[in-house]
Amino acid sequence: MISHPAFSTDPWAIREVGFTPDVLAQSESVFALSNGHIGIRGNLDEGEPHGLPGTYLNGVYENRPLPYAEAGYGDPDSGQTVINVTNGKIIRLLVDDEPFDVRYGTLLSHTRDLDMRAGTLRREVRWVSPAGKEILVRSTRLVSLTHRSIVAIRYEVEAIDPVAVVIQSELVANESLPKGNGDPRSSSPVEWALTLEESTSRHSMALMVHRTLSSGLLVGAAMDHEIDGPDGCRSESEAVGDVARVTVVTHLEAGQKVRLVKLISYGWSGVRSRPAVHDQVVAALAGARQAGWDGLVSSQRAFLDGYWSGADIEVEGDPQVQQAVRFGLFHIIQASARGEQRPVPAKGLTGPGYDGHTFWDSETYVLPVLTYTYPLAARDALLWRASTLPIAEQRAQKLGLRGAAFPWRTIDGKESSGYWPAGTAAFHINADIADAVIRYLDATGDPTFEAETALPLLVGTARLWRSLGQHDIDGNFRIDGVTGPDEYSAIADNNVYTNLMAQRNLRAGAEVASQHHRAAESLRVSSEETASWRDAADTVVIPYDDRLGVHAQSEGFTDHAPWDFEATPSEHYPLMLHYPYFDLYRKQVCKQVDLVLAMVICGESFTADEKTRNFDYYEAVTVRDSSLSASMQAVMAAEVGHLDLAHDYLGEACLIDLRDLEHNTSDGLHLASLAGAWTALVTGFGGLRAANGIMHFSPRLPSGITSLRFKLRYRGSRIGVDITSTKAVYRLLEGSALRIGHHGELIDMAETPVERAIPPLGRRPRPRQPAGREPAPHHTRIGPKPVGGRRGPTG
Amino acid sequence: MISHPAFSTDPWAIREVGFTPDVLAQSESVFALSNGHIGIRGNLDEGEPHGLPGTYLNGVYENRPLPYAEAGYGDPDSGQTVINVTNGKIIRLLVDDEPFDVRYGTLLSHTRDLDMRAGTLRREVRWVSPAGKEILVRSTRLVSLTHRSIVAIRYEVEAIDPVAVVIQSELVANESLPKGNGDPRSSSPVEWALTLEESTSRHSMALMVHRTLSSGLLVGAAMDHEIDGPDGCRSESEAVGDVARVTVVTHLEAGQKVRLVKLISYGWSGVRSRPAVHDQVVAALAGARQAGWDGLVSSQRAFLDGYWSGADIEVEGDPQVQQAVRFGLFHIIQASARGEQRPVPAKGLTGPGYDGHTFWDSETYVLPVLTYTYPLAARDALLWRASTLPIAEQRAQKLGLRGAAFPWRTIDGKESSGYWPAGTAAFHINADIADAVIRYLDATGDPTFEAETALPLLVGTARLWRSLGQHDIDGNFRIDGVTGPDEYSAIADNNVYTNLMAQRNLRAGAEVASQHHRAAESLRVSSEETASWRDAADTVVIPYDDRLGVHAQSEGFTDHAPWDFEATPSEHYPLMLHYPYFDLYRKQVCKQVDLVLAMVICGESFTADEKTRNFDYYEAVTVRDSSLSASMQAVMAAEVGHLDLAHDYLGEACLIDLRDLEHNTSDGLHLASLAGAWTALVTGFGGLRAANGIMHFSPRLPSGITSLRFKLRYRGSRIGVDITSTKAVYRLLEGSALRIGHHGELIDMAETPVERAIPPLGRRPRPRQPAGREPAPHHTRIGPKPVGGRRGPTG
Repeated sequence: MISHPAFSTDPWAIREVGFTPDVLAQSESVFALSNGHIGIRGNLDEGEPHGLPGTYLNGVYENRPLPYAEAGYGDPDSGQTVINVTNGKIIRLLVDDEPFDVRYGTLLSHTRDLDMRAGTLRREVRWVSPAGKEILVRSTRLVSLTHRSIVAIRYEVEAIDPVAVVIQSELVANESLPKGNGDPRSSSPVEWALTLEESTSRHSMALMVHRTLSSGLLVGAAMDHEIDGPDGCRSESEAVGDVARVTVVTHLEAGQKVRLVKLISYGWSGVRSRPAVHDQVVAALAGARQAGWDGLVSSQRAFLDGYWSGADIEVEGDPQVQQAVRFGLFHIIQASARGEQRPVPAKGLTGPGYDGHTFWDSETYVLPVLTYTYPLAARDALLWRASTLPIAEQRAQKLGLRGAAFPWRTIDGKESSGYWPAGTAAFHINADIADAVIRYLDATGDPTFEAETALPLLVGTARLWRSLGQHDIDGNFRIDGVTGPDEYSAIADNNVYTNLMAQRNLRAGAEVASQHHRAAESLRVSSEETASWRDAADTVVIPYDDRLGVHAQSEGFTDHAPWDFEATPSEHYPLMLHYPYFDLYRKQVCKQVDLVLAMVICGESFTADEKTRNFDYYEAVTVRDSSLSASMQAVMAAEVGHLDLAHDYLGEACLIDLRDLEHNTSDGLHLASLAGAWTALVTGFGGLRAANGIMHFSPRLPSGITSLRFKLRYRGSRIGVDITSTKAVYRLLEGSALRIGHHGELIDMAETPVERAIPPLGRRPRPRQPAGREPAPHHTRIGPKPVGGRRGPTG
Repeated sequence: MISHPAFSTDPWAIREVGFTPDVLAQSESVFALSNGHIGIRGNLDEGEPHGLPGTYLNGVYENRPLPYAEAGYGDPDSGQTVINVTNGKIIRLLVDDEPFDVRYGTLLSHTRDLDMRAGTLRREVRWVSPAGKEILVRSTRLVSLTHRSIVAIRYEVEAIDPVAVVIQSELVANESLPKGNGDPRSSSPVEWALTLEESTSRHSMALMVHRTLSSGLLVGAAMDHEIDGPDGCRSESEAVGDVARVTVVTHLEAGQKVRLVKLISYGWSGVRSRPAVHDQVVAALAGARQAGWDGLVSSQRAFLDGYWSGADIEVEGDPQVQQAVRFGLFHIIQASARGEQRPVPAKGLTGPGYDGHTFWDSETYVLPVLTYTYPLAARDALLWRASTLPIAEQRAQKLGLRGAAFPWRTIDGKESSGYWPAGTAAFHINADIADAVIRYLDATGDPTFEAETALPLLVGTARLWRSLGQHDIDGNFRIDGVTGPDEYSAIADNNVYTNLMAQRNLRAGAEVASQHHRAAESLRVSSEETASWRDAADTVVIPYDDRLGVHAQSEGFTDHAPWDFEATPSEHYPLMLHYPYFDLYRKQVCKQVDLVLAMVICGESFTADEKTRNFDYYEAVTVRDSSLSASMQAVMAAEVGHLDLAHDYLGEACLIDLRDLEHNTSDGLHLASLAGAWTALVTGFGGLRAANGIMHFSPRLPSGITSLRFKLRYRGSRIGVDITSTKAVYRLLEGSALRIGHHGELIDMAETPVERAIPPLGRRPRPRQPAGREPAPHHTRIGPKPVGGRRGPTG
């Protein structure tokens, strides 16, 4: 992508100059617009050619059966998959009876521009029809961050030669989709997912309501148009079956223009009636008409200005990372801004990959970024989790456990994982949710959230851990037979990450329950119960291999056979597509960080020496077949002093989609990895660790970055951190005074900026990675490197 | 069944007096006849009513897809399932235009008799038609143990009142089958499995050839008849579609009879042409005609006389066990006598349960019995395994391993298991095959087999183990991430059973390779390779828990949480139908013997004290949700001195089908459990352990058995052992002198019987089983006890 000559490196935009059919599907993901409620892929206005047409509504899914050759008790028999809803972004154009299609005629120029400050995708095309008529088409589209249900497109045709023009602006349901490719990481496309309930048109407006067959959801889409053309410009509308159309017919002299502002509104419901959904989309259109195109554009920019004021990162010395980290932050806010108690899927609403499911990525990779940059969205996502508590409690009961067992992958809260060793067994997701709650509480001190949302979430998950673990005869609290983050291991005893996160979960549950003891009582929490949580947390088993002087990821891990990396050809990555799980699980090979992630999130449980030794040890066995790895390796590499290695990992994490490093950007963006760019910069090079109301920084830059400036929100204040190789300057930009830490020194920050020197660091030998799996320095890399998938069939 | 008043306890027969529609399907399994090549369920001659019609040919299967919600590399995408082939046993009868059907008219008497010495199923029915005409029907059927392709039925109608009689003797393909019940242990019925290729009739003969759709096998069936009736008796034949029919029409005066001898031949092939299969079944019919009914009956008895002379067991004091153990031995020889390089399925050819697959049951439960009673059949079954070596080598390669990886469940040698943690990961099956080879070699000294069959099997499996295990940094040989026999545990490190069996396999591979070094060279076995096998065997890890003084079934097992048996209601057994594998795998609960099986088969690796402590420990956590457990618990209980407990386990093992203890005898018999009755008596109370050309006995009887006499074949000789509570007498019945052991004393046995006293035994407290899972003393038990399934979806 960026390495493709059509793409330039711009600090605030992604710009494609020329049309690039070979990366069409990828560009549709990169140019996707979303507000967390609606997502539209960057398909061309005229609909074709396309890689994969896509319009998604957060929470709209269809059920699909999950078959088993040999089923077991508790295996879910159906799962959810995101569906492509009514496409409202299609605007077809006929030029003197010739359809405007970039594959025919002559394309004089074609430019697309994702503007990350404006929140719009602009396109400009200069085209000569096969009959020799030249036109200029300019379109700008946005998915409104302020009007949750609204997509708006400004579409303008300028005649260079005199031409007759017909514009067909459409709503199209049940578009035919490319077949699935069999890759377990892609989606299972559902064709003809929508059953027509209503289809109507009047003047410049049209509306459709459909119902999903099995999940029984109503989906409404409506459009209205403001048409501005020369005299004699006529329009009409029709709605037939799955297509509704507003047609504009005009003749343009050379230099004349016809302009269309298309407003599209979406609404859906699992409970409301068809008339209610009808009215909802009509009302949303009315609101958008009231704001008008200019109003939508300016409120879009105002929203983003506010976001960037607390989220922006400036990276000097590495323009590719500069662009990529803003690209990541832009898509993070797009995926979450208006989620409003809906999940953040692994690919946001940019594509159907992983069936549109949300995983632990949301809490562990995406929410930390939002917590410190746009905490409202983090809150919303956690409110969604809380809303699924009853389902999680039922699941726990089904599994013979207490409390709440959240799903490994889901859209609506029900478990959609069809392979339990990497689904149900990956209980760490429950502690990941608790951790996101704890982080959000620390960063905001939000008292309503603590009592109403944090308490039941922490109690439900603490109860789960207490019933999942048990004391052995020596009084140690063990959690056996679970799967940690590393998906090349499964069903092991005492996974360090899981146990430390459970420890944190149990302690936080006890603490919040005792702070809100009345509310806790209504959840039937007794002080005996919280005492048993504290005791379990205090005695949790952490396997350590004395012979090697490193922690074992899980019990027995360091006794297992090393993977034979020398004998593994590069085309055998990702390994899970070339070796059986049986073999991966029993050997020392990590798909992704696991023990290293424990050291990042639960750093207080490891000494500096342990971190150094563990990091070196696990670097040698981690292949990064998951997109969840590089960013966290960057953080720990930075902490233990491998700054240039951290920089390489940062590059891999943030360029994953702009360079299509995993060859599946076409299915949607890798949000967790994009979020990881922020994490690598802020918690890696910035050294941010926050707890108990204090943000600690231990900044240190790699040689390739000359200065790093970022902004954060914490406890209602907004601060700015400017880092160079020798010093750091901390500024309070907004809000009340804060106490912060700098390399261990506590500093009270008020209005005056505080400057501190960065202590020097001794050089350490760079640790070794498995043969052929070293992160390539990104600024020298040309084409996509043959890296494999983010996860296996487990998601 | 036996507890049903219709069934009597007869030492040499299973007799049903009266018709028992409530246990019809079960009786069809119990009364099934087979020779290991053909199997016919005990359906009524007239075809209806039936529980489940069934005619099976060993090796005839159809493919079926194995679906996965989330597939992994190496998961087989299709499996095999046994199909119901052309039914040749149907003989319909019309009495004065009324169909003979036991559900109508008046059934004056109905008797069925499985004669285990004659090898026949006899039936006698006295019936009055709705119109008041009385007849007497006598039928005798056999599946010939000497004519491999032949089923014969003698069918006689005697008129008590004068009647017009029409007999329709049929071949019927594609019978409609009852729907599957969803129990993972049953089969997936394939309807319309057969496509007609040829159907023809002439005189008293008819023939059909069909082809299976996906597996592409040709199945031929032919029938011919000898008709003996009064003057005026006429017959005609026809063949239309999937039905061929010979019709006999006659009038009988009171006391007159019409008699039919129906000969049916079967043949099938995956390679030969339709004409060749046609000719094959016609030729087999000619051979059977030559022998005639009387010839078939007498050769059947002669065959069985020979079998019983080396296999019979007499049990005094327990008539139910007496009957049941002969029932088991009868079905064992029926399942294997004429297998001739086909597998012994878990249910023989008595029903479609487990899709007709063979498992490790064959080598570990059935072949030991055959090895000492009818070694030719053991040899045949092992030759079948050897014939699948190329498939097993491909599978090993697919899994990234060396040597041969045999399938967990299969019909034709290809892996048909759709749940890898209890399929592919259960590598012990390879050592089980090696162990059966070693036992067969020890018992026969068969030199051709050793060089031609044992060598490649032992080399292939030894290579597998060498590549599956690895030395840790202390030089111990570990086998990680595998599943042992206990199916309530999976993917664990250093399973004791697996490691000890692998040790034996590696040593035997090295030994046989050095004895046949030239042949071994042609398999590219070097002395470096065999040395590495010996070294691995010598350093194999055997986990032991010092704190508890017991072996851990696998590493970590004894640290796991105990299962909460008190909180488990009896209707929650079998546990795998009520709890997720996740939970079962991580707790101390055994579906079946695992460590105890290691102590039975590899007794030399444990001290007497260890056996006692281990047995007590694992008794407390073993729930016997598998039919593979009770017999081996009986053996170890007897060895450590719990003789009455052993007797209870013996009762459970041998009465499994006669009492339908697992509620699925309708799907076919549990051959491994039936074989286990022999094992419990001979290796349990007889104390037989054989190795290095010597049979060691340590006989001791429980209080409920006053004397036990059994016969065995070993090294070409035949011996008899008579045991009472105080002494044992050993007799050489045939062949050359043998050295045997009696309670540790070595004795050279020649013509004179040898008598030895049985040393007294101190009393020990009876170990405890999980609450509610104690074996009930079988002589006091009335109805079926609520025991669960033999295995989970894994088979």
